[in-house]
Amino acid sequence: MRAIWAELIGTFCLVFFAVGAAVYGIEPEGVGYVGVALAFGLVLFALAYALGPISGCHVNPAVTLGALLTGRIGVGPAVGFWIAQFAGGIGAAALLKYMTTGGGATDQTGALGANDYGATVDVGGAFVIETLLTFLLVFVVLAVTSKKGATPAAGAAIGLVLAVIHLVGLPLTGTSVNPARSLGPALFAGGAPLEHLWLFIVAPLCGGILAAIVQPLLYGRERTPVDEAV
Amino acid sequence: MRAIWAELIGTFCLVFFAVGAAVYGIEPEGVGYVGVALAFGLVLFALAYALGPISGCHVNPAVTLGALLTGRIGVGPAVGFWIAQFAGGIGAAALLKYMTTGGGATDQTGALGANDYGATVDVGGAFVIETLLTFLLVFVVLAVTSKKGATPAAGAAIGLVLAVIHLVGLPLTGTSVNPARSLGPALFAGGAPLEHLWLFIVAPLCGGILAAIVQPLLYGRERTPVDEAV
Amino acid sequence: MRAIWAELIGTFCLVFFAVGAAVYGIEPEGVGYVGVALAFGLVLFALAYALGPISGCHVNPAVTLGALLTGRIGVGPAVGFWIAQFAGGIGAAALLKYMTTGGGATDQTGALGANDYGATVDVGGAFVIETLLTFLLVFVVLAVTSKKGATPAAGAAIGLVLAVIHLVGLPLTGTSVNPARSLGPALFAGGAPLEHLWLFIVAPLCGGILAAIVQPLLYGRERTPVDEAV
Amino acid sequence: MRAIWAELIGTFCLVFFAVGAAVYGIEPEGVGYVGVALAFGLVLFALAYALGPISGCHVNPAVTLGALLTGRIGVGPAVGFWIAQFAGGIGAAALLKYMTTGGGATDQTGALGANDYGATVDVGGAFVIETLLTFLLVFVVLAVTSKKGATPAAGAAIGLVLAVIHLVGLPLTGTSVNPARSLGPALFAGGAPLEHLWLFIVAPLCGGILAAIVQPLLYGRERTPVDEAV
Repeated sequence: MRAIWAELIGTFCLVFFAVGAAVYGIEPEGVGYVGVALAFGLVLFALAYALGPISGCHVNPAVTLGALLTGRIGVGPAVGFWIAQFAGGIGAAALLKYMTTGGGATDQTGALGANDYGATVDVGGAFVIETLLTFLLVFVVLAVTSKKGATPAAGAAIGLVLAVIHLVGLPLTGTSVNPARSLGPALFAGGAPLEHLWLFIVAPLCGGILAAIVQPLLYGRERTPVDEAV
Repeated sequence: MRAIWAELIGTFCLVFFAVGAAVYGIEPEGVGYVGVALAFGLVLFALAYALGPISGCHVNPAVTLGALLTGRIGVGPAVGFWIAQFAGGIGAAALLKYMTTGGGATDQTGALGANDYGATVDVGGAFVIETLLTFLLVFVVLAVTSKKGATPAAGAAIGLVLAVIHLVGLPLTGTSVNPARSLGPALFAGGAPLEHLWLFIVAPLCGGILAAIVQPLLYGRERTPVDEAV
Repeated sequence: MRAIWAELIGTFCLVFFAVGAAVYGIEPEGVGYVGVALAFGLVLFALAYALGPISGCHVNPAVTLGALLTGRIGVGPAVGFWIAQFAGGIGAAALLKYMTTGGGATDQTGALGANDYGATVDVGGAFVIETLLTFLLVFVVLAVTSKKGATPAAGAAIGLVLAVIHLVGLPLTGTSVNPARSLGPALFAGGAPLEHLWLFIVAPLCGGILAAIVQPLLYGRERTPVDEAV
Repeated sequence: MRAIWAELIGTFCLVFFAVGAAVYGIEPEGVGYVGVALAFGLVLFALAYALGPISGCHVNPAVTLGALLTGRIGVGPAVGFWIAQFAGGIGAAALLKYMTTGGGATDQTGALGANDYGATVDVGGAFVIETLLTFLLVFVVLAVTSKKGATPAAGAAIGLVLAVIHLVGLPLTGTSVNPARSLGPALFAGGAPLEHLWLFIVAPLCGGILAAIVQPLLYGRERTPVDEAV
């Protein structure tokens, strides 16, 4: 149960802090794309070490799907993680929204930092890019937390690859790679982001599945916690 | 006594270097929000390793409060740490001020980098954001320095989460999350920052208390140095 | 064979993600030189930990040449690595191109992020700078993966030195230091980048050779995997 | 003798890569202060791991002075290090200059990245700031390489504190904190930077002396390599 709470708090913090850096500060003369990318990367860097010992710090349904398909987590806990992640993301979006109403702040993104496509990339391009960006994230997570790839730098690698992913994807889709990061802001933004939400759920999950196929092919099949529980 | 001096020197360096990056260089064509956020994050990253073995490198009364409430430090040393932290912050602000008078430099922030609210966020929003930002900082500190969460990357995680916290909070309140960082500049700036100083003392301490409640719930109660001293 | 696939996937990811940060986002009001430099550095940081246990994560023919000359890898595997690296780079360039045609994105670099000289540096200056930049990259790789220099921070050092290398070289040649990174985009861009491609193959290899001479002089000759296989 | 060569190569790389990021790219629409600060920080990060096992990677006469005063190195080797560091810095400045003449590049700093004061800070302010900036650098080096403070993150802490130091000092003096970094460019730039060079030699050495006093007070006197050689 502690792991479920860790996922909820972690996803809340990821969405509030990283999307918040965009919502409150991307313009004018603000943090820009580099600042938002670093916000995503560095908050996941820190959370990976602060929550990793409790839940593994997935804070992303696509990561949990990858962990499930590679036998790192069972079905029951995975469902619990998913619920917690979406709840955390919705809670963060609610607080982001409150700050721009009750708190007097201005939403510099105009849509609470929601993901969308159509402006700089079409639906096909968005699907390809979100799948590929998520593949790299989940592949790195599965690799550096495998038995063969384990390293004290795991949290650093996971966090910093999320920063790169945002450097590439921010000008295109705003970068989802995480259905829980997309759902909350879309619910409050409504309009196009809500109509296009399906893509930011389906494509990241496809990326997670792809990573769950490729990582074991490169690393070989390892005995996993789920195997050991059998 | 060495720990007290480490806290004084550490808080002096944190405030002089990180606030100084804003005071001397945030404009024009300067380091900007990203540069100031990195200054806070990277100086704490380095100090965490350079002073951690001596005092734990709190350099922040809210962190010391979190450590006190979770039994990592006793009341006597905590009071000593607080005095040293405020003294270090005031000393740093004095030197920041001297540089703009005797040293010929220009204060690009107009208020010696003091924290304030009212321009982009109102008092309620400022209280919420400072509490939440400080919660994440103190939670990460308590987590990665706990027995279960200990890691050689602890200093990296602590420093880099402070960078994220500034990426979110700089456009709103200038980001305190540290009463000792706020007191010194406010004393020299006077005016609104001094009138509003209470918020940047109270809200960070609330965030520290919240972290001291949540971290043991997630990690379970561990025997602490204070327990062991009994 | 797994190592060959790791090199192909790694080089694909390096080129797609890092060159992609430039192609889709360097302008206007985009990630800029700092963002592109961080994209190169941080993706290599993550890949070093995610692929290092499988192939050593060369993802660069100049690194493989340095490893070959210092006896870290045999001739057969080196040839396999080279083929995989060039294939990965071409595949990444093809996908970068597809995104700007079938995917609706705009190429902000005008030449698919291909390397070139002539605008801000002449051919002689470009040769010197590419040789020297590659020397530092390959020297750091050989040093921190040697027996005497081995460190858990190896991937961090390797990734972050690539970021510095781009901070210096982006305004001059766009920074190659990696023939596989240059070949793919040049094939699709054609024109001057394709005519000047020879320099971005020859100079990086010269840099790799130089590093393979200097590193053993500083570290002393160590028994290598190839020695041990004899 | 290998250590001497390591210091020469390391100082050459520090000055060429970090000052080069300013000379070739600080303007227009270039890497800016943040990019230059990261160039200094990240190249030292990488060099610390790549040269640390050979020479300790001082690459800075003020660091060597601090090491000498705390008994980490003897007088003979220190003199050798100093000669190598100045030689490396001059060599790097020569190559920086060549690139802007024979290589066709433009010097965006107008003075080969030389340090100076007078524009945004007067001589007194410059002395104070250079002393204090160098104090923090040398203090961090001495702390994280002491017996009590040793950590696998030492190179990261040392490199990243140099980045912070540049975020503060770039708008004021351009940041020296390293006499060998200042001498080379000043020799080629001439004029005011050469007349003011004394400050960028004396103040950093004062900072190094201050660090060599404070660090042992906080850490306690440890048996050092020089003690052990007696």
